[in-house]
Amino acid sequence: MPGYVLLLNGPSLNRLGERDPAVYGTETLAEIVERVRRLLAPHDIDLVDKQSNHEGVLMDILQQYGPTARGIIINPGAFAHYSYALRDCLEDVGARRPVIEVHLSNVYRREPFRHHSVLAPVVTGQITGLGSRGYELAAQAVISLIQEGTA
Amino acid sequence: MPGYVLLLNGPSLNRLGERDPAVYGTETLAEIVERVRRLLAPHDIDLVDKQSNHEGVLMDILQQYGPTARGIIINPGAFAHYSYALRDCLEDVGARRPVIEVHLSNVYRREPFRHHSVLAPVVTGQITGLGSRGYELAAQAVISLIQEGTA
Amino acid sequence: MPGYVLLLNGPSLNRLGERDPAVYGTETLAEIVERVRRLLAPHDIDLVDKQSNHEGVLMDILQQYGPTARGIIINPGAFAHYSYALRDCLEDVGARRPVIEVHLSNVYRREPFRHHSVLAPVVTGQITGLGSRGYELAAQAVISLIQEGTA
Amino acid sequence: MPGYVLLLNGPSLNRLGERDPAVYGTETLAEIVERVRRLLAPHDIDLVDKQSNHEGVLMDILQQYGPTARGIIINPGAFAHYSYALRDCLEDVGARRPVIEVHLSNVYRREPFRHHSVLAPVVTGQITGLGSRGYELAAQAVISLIQEGTA
Amino acid sequence: MPGYVLLLNGPSLNRLGERDPAVYGTETLAEIVERVRRLLAPHDIDLVDKQSNHEGVLMDILQQYGPTARGIIINPGAFAHYSYALRDCLEDVGARRPVIEVHLSNVYRREPFRHHSVLAPVVTGQITGLGSRGYELAAQAVISLIQEGTA
Amino acid sequence: MPGYVLLLNGPSLNRLGERDPAVYGTETLAEIVERVRRLLAPHDIDLVDKQSNHEGVLMDILQQYGPTARGIIINPGAFAHYSYALRDCLEDVGARRPVIEVHLSNVYRREPFRHHSVLAPVVTGQITGLGSRGYELAAQAVISLIQEGTA
Amino acid sequence: MPGYVLLLNGPSLNRLGERDPAVYGTETLAEIVERVRRLLAPHDIDLVDKQSNHEGVLMDILQQYGPTARGIIINPGAFAHYSYALRDCLEDVGARRPVIEVHLSNVYRREPFRHHSVLAPVVTGQITGLGSRGYELAAQAVISLIQEGTA
Amino acid sequence: MPGYVLLLNGPSLNRLGERDPAVYGTETLAEIVERVRRLLAPHDIDLVDKQSNHEGVLMDILQQYGPTARGIIINPGAFAHYSYALRDCLEDVGARRPVIEVHLSNVYRREPFRHHSVLAPVVTGQITGLGSRGYELAAQAVISLIQEGTA
Amino acid sequence: MPGYVLLLNGPSLNRLGERDPAVYGTETLAEIVERVRRLLAPHDIDLVDKQSNHEGVLMDILQQYGPTARGIIINPGAFAHYSYALRDCLEDVGARRPVIEVHLSNVYRREPFRHHSVLAPVVTGQITGLGSRGYELAAQAVISLIQEGTA
Amino acid sequence: MPGYVLLLNGPSLNRLGERDPAVYGTETLAEIVERVRRLLAPHDIDLVDKQSNHEGVLMDILQQYGPTARGIIINPGAFAHYSYALRDCLEDVGARRPVIEVHLSNVYRREPFRHHSVLAPVVTGQITGLGSRGYELAAQAVISLIQEGTA
Amino acid sequence: MPGYVLLLNGPSLNRLGERDPAVYGTETLAEIVERVRRLLAPHDIDLVDKQSNHEGVLMDILQQYGPTARGIIINPGAFAHYSYALRDCLEDVGARRPVIEVHLSNVYRREPFRHHSVLAPVVTGQITGLGSRGYELAAQAVISLIQEGTA
Amino acid sequence: MPGYVLLLNGPSLNRLGERDPAVYGTETLAEIVERVRRLLAPHDIDLVDKQSNHEGVLMDILQQYGPTARGIIINPGAFAHYSYALRDCLEDVGARRPVIEVHLSNVYRREPFRHHSVLAPVVTGQITGLGSRGYELAAQAVISLIQEGTA
Repeated sequence: MPGYVLLLNGPSLNRLGERDPAVYGTETLAEIVERVRRLLAPHDIDLVDKQSNHEGVLMDILQQYGPTARGIIINPGAFAHYSYALRDCLEDVGARRPVIEVHLSNVYRREPFRHHSVLAPVVTGQITGLGSRGYELAAQAVISLIQEGTA
Repeated sequence: MPGYVLLLNGPSLNRLGERDPAVYGTETLAEIVERVRRLLAPHDIDLVDKQSNHEGVLMDILQQYGPTARGIIINPGAFAHYSYALRDCLEDVGARRPVIEVHLSNVYRREPFRHHSVLAPVVTGQITGLGSRGYELAAQAVISLIQEGTA
Repeated sequence: MPGYVLLLNGPSLNRLGERDPAVYGTETLAEIVERVRRLLAPHDIDLVDKQSNHEGVLMDILQQYGPTARGIIINPGAFAHYSYALRDCLEDVGARRPVIEVHLSNVYRREPFRHHSVLAPVVTGQITGLGSRGYELAAQAVISLIQEGTA
Repeated sequence: MPGYVLLLNGPSLNRLGERDPAVYGTETLAEIVERVRRLLAPHDIDLVDKQSNHEGVLMDILQQYGPTARGIIINPGAFAHYSYALRDCLEDVGARRPVIEVHLSNVYRREPFRHHSVLAPVVTGQITGLGSRGYELAAQAVISLIQEGTA
Repeated sequence: MPGYVLLLNGPSLNRLGERDPAVYGTETLAEIVERVRRLLAPHDIDLVDKQSNHEGVLMDILQQYGPTARGIIINPGAFAHYSYALRDCLEDVGARRPVIEVHLSNVYRREPFRHHSVLAPVVTGQITGLGSRGYELAAQAVISLIQEGTA
Repeated sequence: MPGYVLLLNGPSLNRLGERDPAVYGTETLAEIVERVRRLLAPHDIDLVDKQSNHEGVLMDILQQYGPTARGIIINPGAFAHYSYALRDCLEDVGARRPVIEVHLSNVYRREPFRHHSVLAPVVTGQITGLGSRGYELAAQAVISLIQEGTA
Repeated sequence: MPGYVLLLNGPSLNRLGERDPAVYGTETLAEIVERVRRLLAPHDIDLVDKQSNHEGVLMDILQQYGPTARGIIINPGAFAHYSYALRDCLEDVGARRPVIEVHLSNVYRREPFRHHSVLAPVVTGQITGLGSRGYELAAQAVISLIQEGTA
Repeated sequence: MPGYVLLLNGPSLNRLGERDPAVYGTETLAEIVERVRRLLAPHDIDLVDKQSNHEGVLMDILQQYGPTARGIIINPGAFAHYSYALRDCLEDVGARRPVIEVHLSNVYRREPFRHHSVLAPVVTGQITGLGSRGYELAAQAVISLIQEGTA
Repeated sequence: MPGYVLLLNGPSLNRLGERDPAVYGTETLAEIVERVRRLLAPHDIDLVDKQSNHEGVLMDILQQYGPTARGIIINPGAFAHYSYALRDCLEDVGARRPVIEVHLSNVYRREPFRHHSVLAPVVTGQITGLGSRGYELAAQAVISLIQEGTA
Repeated sequence: MPGYVLLLNGPSLNRLGERDPAVYGTETLAEIVERVRRLLAPHDIDLVDKQSNHEGVLMDILQQYGPTARGIIINPGAFAHYSYALRDCLEDVGARRPVIEVHLSNVYRREPFRHHSVLAPVVTGQITGLGSRGYELAAQAVISLIQEGTA
Repeated sequence: MPGYVLLLNGPSLNRLGERDPAVYGTETLAEIVERVRRLLAPHDIDLVDKQSNHEGVLMDILQQYGPTARGIIINPGAFAHYSYALRDCLEDVGARRPVIEVHLSNVYRREPFRHHSVLAPVVTGQITGLGSRGYELAAQAVISLIQEGTA
Repeated sequence: MPGYVLLLNGPSLNRLGERDPAVYGTETLAEIVERVRRLLAPHDIDLVDKQSNHEGVLMDILQQYGPTARGIIINPGAFAHYSYALRDCLEDVGARRPVIEVHLSNVYRREPFRHHSVLAPVVTGQITGLGSRGYELAAQAVISLIQEGTA
């Protein structure tokens, strides 16, 4: 099962560990990414991980790495709530591979604008509110979906 | 880590395997439950599993088994979209233990009434659109949350 | 054309004849059921008739009798306006057989919450505002749809 | 029980048989009208049947034939969704006689604008989603309502 | 002050005197028109009066008589609530002359759809709820506006 | 026909003649009141005229003068759009006598908040957009309604 | 004044004393019921008290005990916000006797879904936010309404 | 328990006994106030009672008498539906003492604008639909809350 | 490529050249039609051009000329915003041929009711805001779509 | 630059220093007014300062002092959210002079009803969330706008 | 007529030919651009063509090339639905030159979020649903608008 | 009081002086920045000023300069109306320092989309409609807030 999974993190996620720890936890993004990488390695799957505050950069990366990825894990940050451009891009390059949307916090307990993700209809599934372990569960789901040849 | 996890399934989920397989898959609920049970066993955690089409029965079970459970996994079926009574009950007995809401299908690709869960603000997290493996991911999350003593 | 039709009546319909006669008429449910039974008999079709105030019981009955029924006639009472669980159940067991939703009163002349049925998109057709004869018209429609092999 | 029933068909219904048969069936309007006429004949009731694409013509006909009709069966086509003028006219001339609104398709499965009929509050009842047999059921309902002297 | 005023009545207003007298009064349209005509005569102003149930006919008349009228009095009936075509037509031919919209009943006491007139923004003024004398007040207003050379 | 009519003007109407003349005209309130008084005099009806910027004062006046007035003419100014207290008061003391609501400008051409009057459902009728002559038409309507003994 | 009052408590109210005491207080339901019973006793009125998490059971009880009760006190819990079936049932059996809806907490300070009771239009009155003493005030109101022969 | 309770009545409540008795009853406000005064007297609590049609006067009174009152009973009349100024004032001076909002009629059976009280989130509790005895129940609640030292 | 294109113009478009030239331009409809005719001629395509203020006439024409047209160009005028009957008709007869909706002005700069066309979902494409040259561009699009055999 | 600035404070602002200090600060209104007065003095501008809980009094003051003021600073308190009468008055007398609306707290962090000011469209500018120094900034802005002869 | 037209394409349009061909066609963006270039050449007009997934880059380009362009053709992709920043930029630099917004697909047949373009009110016109030929029609419109010296 | 204030300007603000001067004034951004710099200098506070049309660049700058700034002044341009990503970033890095949002024009007099700022709930305060002097007032507010050690 060679190949790679693309792990994409959107705006403000480079601040994990510093940004409001009561909501987002104390781990850094680098620590989380490393845990996901170790989880994929036994399956001979590499991890391409990128973070950007730029909507356009996230799309450029999706266009570059998406079409040949085995799966995509994306935490779109606040772009989840309004970036129809990111949605179009994800729908385009995410077709025929598992795509998992991850949110660290339980967005349904927070401001109303966070209750709606414009990406949700074009991903395979969502994992929300489970903190950084949501990324690991997403990686397990991607592996499982690849193994079953579905999604 | 002795104790038990409560796995609660709401209306129509007893029909899994027969009900629209294109949406809900071909596994029966018994097969899924068995997989979750095997996943919890190594951690010395039992599984109490219940299914009912009755909102009132689901609440009676939550009141009976919830307060002493180590964690709760619930697929509320269509009650997710309107049962404020179930929400109140879950908020009451689910306090101080991990509660994971699972939906088999990607509800955001379906009818608008399925886009909103009235339970979401009172659970720890949600796993949506990942089919029956969503239950397994939920069980892993519960174990992990118990081990960390959070949630 | 042997077999049976399932006639299901929801909450408060056991009170027909006593409940506000100006709106719901003076016949009892037993009298109406008997008329429907007599209408089906010449076609060698039995009638299984059930009434319950319990949403869960209505679903249990639908799961028990629906999959082998020749057709279903349902007056969901007020569950029409919010029971997405009943809708899911009806969509599941009602597939591949005629399902007719009946309302005794013209719901469009009454409170706004009565103007919307969440069941309507999953039934074959609706008969509204024609009093108890709506059940008989529904039975005729079921017979006709069975004879034509459509629906 | 001499007299006549007015059967009124609105825009595009002259195209029945040609217009999208998957939705509207393969019968022509003439065939349907003939079946309704035969159904009324044994009760000594004539049928005045009219079709027009013109909202104003439909109102002129209602004003001409409505006040002396024994009952009215109307398929308003798309006028159902916005013609408050037709509603006013129907409320005026339809008072004191049964008025049945018929829709061939299950409008609740189609575009949202079709879910709402502005005529519904001023008719006696509605029959929806039962194809051309909806006209026959409507005729039976009219006969029955005339016989009972209600509506 | 020679010339004429155009008095235009929309759908169902030919039924005045017969249509629900509790709401619309017992006078016929002919009687009302005659009263308006007598009111204009001393000012040497003729009355062109037309009634139609046809939105298109009302527009044809407005295009024919509007551009040379001294003023326009219109009771659009239910077209008030949705006929943007009539609004466009009235805005076009009604420019540079007084246009008064009349409603017999107090529409704000009735169904919500009657609370909104799409014509209101393109007329000079509205007289509502004052019964048939609303036409006479409108005629007085037109005369007064002509005399002042405003509107 | 002895007695008096109450003419009540709300906030900012004391500024007529100075306030934006393009919208509200160049006449002062005193001039308008005088014209109305002269119009009522031949019918032996006095005019009690009051203006206040205070919602409470307007209600005190209505309670003092309303129950014995022959009719009420009210330009509520901006209170029309939100003063449910004024509405309750007008409904209470205005029962059994004609009440006419007057607006100088065509409120439907202006900001959306002006399109809705909370008083409209409790008055007899409305005259809108006809400038200061709206008061005179209202006075004529009151006289006519008194003469007919209706309203 | 012999007879009985029906005191009906909905979902989660059996958990009073354990459920979030900051919101719902520390008394048990049994203690509250006992206080109400003692309050009714001097008036020779018994108390039939029932609690259920089942919407259907609540309706069955209302149909059994409602029609012969002197009055009904109901805390519907979360069913207040969506159970149109309970509303229909209460409207049916509650006619011609006082019905008081009680809420322990001030629902208007909490989540928006709690601000709306679908039962409110069919009860005599509501007592909200006054904790367990709301039941006693309701009992006093029932006694007073029975004594006056109104409601 | 010396001190006083402030009883505040808003617009049109001075008209009790005269204003629509079918809705508001036949008692005068003076009679109701006297009953409340007698109910408080045994507890050595005086009653300061005020009525005004002026929103500003109600606020002046609240600022003068509120901060030293033992409790506040307020029937805001129609100000309940829009007076955010009264709400701010009540929230300010009502802190740390019981505040009960009373409505005579069941506002949920009447016009939609009456279904919403902007004061509700800043009062202790509400009593609605129980007529003039609502004031007495409110007084009992205030006494009870003072005795318990809560609210 | 013999055959004809149907060019249909709705209400008020016969007034082009006279109606508000700042918005609609100074050309007459005849001049525009002539330009379209000359544009189609080299392709051996005739032009059937019709204008009517009558919704029903537009539908009659569509039913007569639509099914055999090579393409349809329609400026529905204000019917665009509410005529679901015209939409149904256009969907019926426009299937399997290019249909272009033209609006002269940029409707998105004008009143909100003009921002929504109920016809838009059943046409091939829309050209908006480009004045009378929008018709010519539509004709070019129709030719091009015919040549490619798509649409 | 002789003349005066009108500083107008609405309901509850006389309670500054006592009212919820966490939100509104500990300064009294008199202290704030004094600071503003000292800030204007060097520019030879007097301060006319008024506070009232009465909407009508605020309008009377605006009509008396507004037309000759050099500028207006207004903290409307809760009237900001619904007083269209105050808005009309401010628009009338505030024309041709700078008008600054001040709010002490950041209204966008508080209840939704505080997010909308009906006065905002008729003032020159707004200063929000900066506490009592907002008044001083407003005074500086007024001076600056007077000096530039704009606004 | 020397000079250049700016052709700007937004996110995902670089994927034309690969992205869902059933919706967007099989041509590449380069092929389309080349066709537009050839169409402009005979008029001595160059083409500056740019594509970016970056909202900010699109604005930088508009600021650099817009003010000296003869016209602008823009397919904003999904930015059409939410980028008010792009709208402001286009309104700024697009003044005094033709600006045409192009959408390849009929957006009104797709998800609701695609039915609304925030750019539409600041462009000259829109061409929608006509595939890649929409660009050519836009170029023709620009040429024609330049020749006429309008827009 | 050493340190620096970050002054951040969003899209199109580099065009000040050229962009619609009637709305945005004739000063260039450089001139405004210089005035703010001179205002801060006496307090020994530097100014870091940045402008970008790129949402991502604005966030990168906020993450780089925000955490060590003494205060932040931001004119987000149109990003105010939809950039939840910018809001999250501002909430993260703006905590524990004054943040002032500035808008040049009175946004409440313009298009509805400009009436809502998604940043408003996470800033300290807002200054709107006061032109370029809004920046200076913001700088004064920041100095004052730093001196008081609040915000």
